[in-house]
Amino acid sequence: MTTTTRDASRLSANEAAVAAMLSAEPELIDVLPALEAVPGMANDIILVSGPLMRWQDYTGCQRLAVVGAAVFEGLAASPAEADGLLRSGAIRLASCHEYGAVGSLTGVCSASMPVLVVQDRLSGRTATCRMNEGAGTRALTFGSQGPAVTANLARIRDRVPPALARILRASPIPLLPIMAQALAMGDELHGRQTAAGLLFRNAVLERLLHLRGNAPESAALLAYLDTAEFHFLHVAMAAAKVIADTADSIPGSSIVTAMAMNEKEFAVRVSGLPGQWFRAPLPPISGFPGRIMVPWTPADLGYSGGDSLIMETLGLGGAAAAAAPALSPVSVGTPAQMMELTSSLYAVASSEHPTMRIPALGGRGVPWGMDAAAIVERRLVPPVHIGATLRSGGLAGAIYFTPPLQPFIDATERLQSIV
Amino acid sequence: MTTTTRDASRLSANEAAVAAMLSAEPELIDVLPALEAVPGMANDIILVSGPLMRWQDYTGCQRLAVVGAAVFEGLAASPAEADGLLRSGAIRLASCHEYGAVGSLTGVCSASMPVLVVQDRLSGRTATCRMNEGAGTRALTFGSQGPAVTANLARIRDRVPPALARILRASPIPLLPIMAQALAMGDELHGRQTAAGLLFRNAVLERLLHLRGNAPESAALLAYLDTAEFHFLHVAMAAAKVIADTADSIPGSSIVTAMAMNEKEFAVRVSGLPGQWFRAPLPPISGFPGRIMVPWTPADLGYSGGDSLIMETLGLGGAAAAAAPALSPVSVGTPAQMMELTSSLYAVASSEHPTMRIPALGGRGVPWGMDAAAIVERRLVPPVHIGATLRSGGLAGAIYFTPPLQPFIDATERLQSIV
Repeated sequence: MTTTTRDASRLSANEAAVAAMLSAEPELIDVLPALEAVPGMANDIILVSGPLMRWQDYTGCQRLAVVGAAVFEGLAASPAEADGLLRSGAIRLASCHEYGAVGSLTGVCSASMPVLVVQDRLSGRTATCRMNEGAGTRALTFGSQGPAVTANLARIRDRVPPALARILRASPIPLLPIMAQALAMGDELHGRQTAAGLLFRNAVLERLLHLRGNAPESAALLAYLDTAEFHFLHVAMAAAKVIADTADSIPGSSIVTAMAMNEKEFAVRVSGLPGQWFRAPLPPISGFPGRIMVPWTPADLGYSGGDSLIMETLGLGGAAAAAAPALSPVSVGTPAQMMELTSSLYAVASSEHPTMRIPALGGRGVPWGMDAAAIVERRLVPPVHIGATLRSGGLAGAIYFTPPLQPFIDATERLQSIV
Repeated sequence: MTTTTRDASRLSANEAAVAAMLSAEPELIDVLPALEAVPGMANDIILVSGPLMRWQDYTGCQRLAVVGAAVFEGLAASPAEADGLLRSGAIRLASCHEYGAVGSLTGVCSASMPVLVVQDRLSGRTATCRMNEGAGTRALTFGSQGPAVTANLARIRDRVPPALARILRASPIPLLPIMAQALAMGDELHGRQTAAGLLFRNAVLERLLHLRGNAPESAALLAYLDTAEFHFLHVAMAAAKVIADTADSIPGSSIVTAMAMNEKEFAVRVSGLPGQWFRAPLPPISGFPGRIMVPWTPADLGYSGGDSLIMETLGLGGAAAAAAPALSPVSVGTPAQMMELTSSLYAVASSEHPTMRIPALGGRGVPWGMDAAAIVERRLVPPVHIGATLRSGGLAGAIYFTPPLQPFIDATERLQSIV
């Protein structure tokens, strides 16, 4: 195939991928234990974010979180026993993305943990994301452990889901309208979810009022929504996963269908190469713009993985920085610089979203459908807004960083080699 | 007094005025018929926005609205009879501001109409604003008349208030937190109230759920909140009036305590000259930036008055344009120009609000406490975001305009003459 023919073929495949993404109508339909909702899930499986590594390569937050989950789930009586079982394969580690799921930061999820179930109304396709663990900087998903973490995990498992499940089964919550309205109210849907969380809470309140349901159950849910600042991020991540999946497996398409991290690597998938990760080591974490809320030295900070880059995969989060000037302290710079950043990314996006619009850019839709080939050509990788954790466990703050280019180069070259 | 001494005295008076304004904690406490809630209200009084003129000087929307209110209230059987009674003084016309009230656009309010009651928790002081008339471009407050307008007025009077009154009496809604959060979500609280309306609706839903109240009553209220896009503007106006009133009557202070319009004049009050309006004719309405949604010629558009400039009086609305880039089509220009505009107004404001902050300006508080003397010195009048109406009645769209400087000059000179 000539370069010109190959380019035309890629662009046409990308158009199909973007059209598929725009057809999705994600709705939050249920909250269920992972064992019931995640296809292929088993009691001895623990999910983590990012591309899978060998167990012995996990040395930071993800290791801490997985060991903690194994003990919480009753798969091991102690961290040491859990480590042995993970080493032997008696406890199986798996990547969220291989199970139709996405996970925030470490992404840890075991069988009994509640997951949010998002379904595309059009295709029936589903994706899941574990419920946010609620308020505070110490949570299993940040690698934290201890009695308070365990007690909170039990609360999130037992107390919060019943009212939510009941209202969702009666009346699913459409997510694109919330996401579009939130963009118009200063969210970029990764680092900032303030308006989206409010819209979601409003939808929950309406449904609770309509069902006039069990008051103690409702109170537990509302208390959770009040205190879990990022509760909607997990809903949005599952929605974004469903949307990205609609663009998967289109021969020749260089549309990015996933960006994700484990605690050591950044990795990319493209539509035309389904199931294949292209990986590169993460850059040193210190030196990025951001705001760290706890006392720290550069040696204290570590990556903890994260599938939440599924937001930037679509063109939200860091890519839509212009929408969220309030994030200026943890983004590329001033609101004006955030506007410049987002404006630059239209060069690597295949489209602009018709309803998720950015007021500060005169109502222009977010850059939508990232094209790995264009990213390589322009050497312009969509940057990321993400939480920072301590190596010893615990949320530290938020940072802005630009992932490495190499995985996009590798994916593009591999795609070109087979068409 | 020397100029220097006079300036020092003015600045110190202004500091006291601004401190008073910052101490206010407005809460929405009730919704009641105007007759019950507005001090001095009587069955034969009809309130209008702006400084009062002689009845024969009202020739546009305000005339239409007042006549319509007289008939709706049963004070006259026909518009012609109403006109005669208004001319003779048998029906008394009064200015909202003289009755501790503010009115949107024509500002029309008669005895049976429901008003929102806002109270400053600290001082106990109250202010009122009539409830928004709901969806649509044809409403009495836009000078529209006819059976549909009348039926809607009856619904707003009879069906919407009960549930709201019940929850407010059990649990008032604090307004500053809503206003501050709304600023952080892209509202400037005059032309755009999207986030504030959502926050308010959330507060209402919570209270309804808590009271588990009468379902049909709740449904009428929620349907109203869903469709009345600017419902919160009227709440915010009453809050702003309470706040501005705390700054009133401080000897020597040039802090602006009201900007308001009738259908022909723009007028200003300053703290040190309580109760005195300084007026100037409104500029021709055509030629301003804005968006008119109906077919029109310049001859069709007319001012219809408006106390909603109480928002700009504080430093919100057009003065805080930078907060609401989504209003770009009906404001000074691009989002960047809106940022420049708001930035320029710090030169005429006495302070910056500590919690109502603008993300696009790096989190800077809105310019707060407009100083008439500084406005004169810089020849810089805070501009206004306001609805435009048709001379024949009906909402036409939204415009941006800069009020005349002369009333600020007159007020400042008068203030200097007495100190």
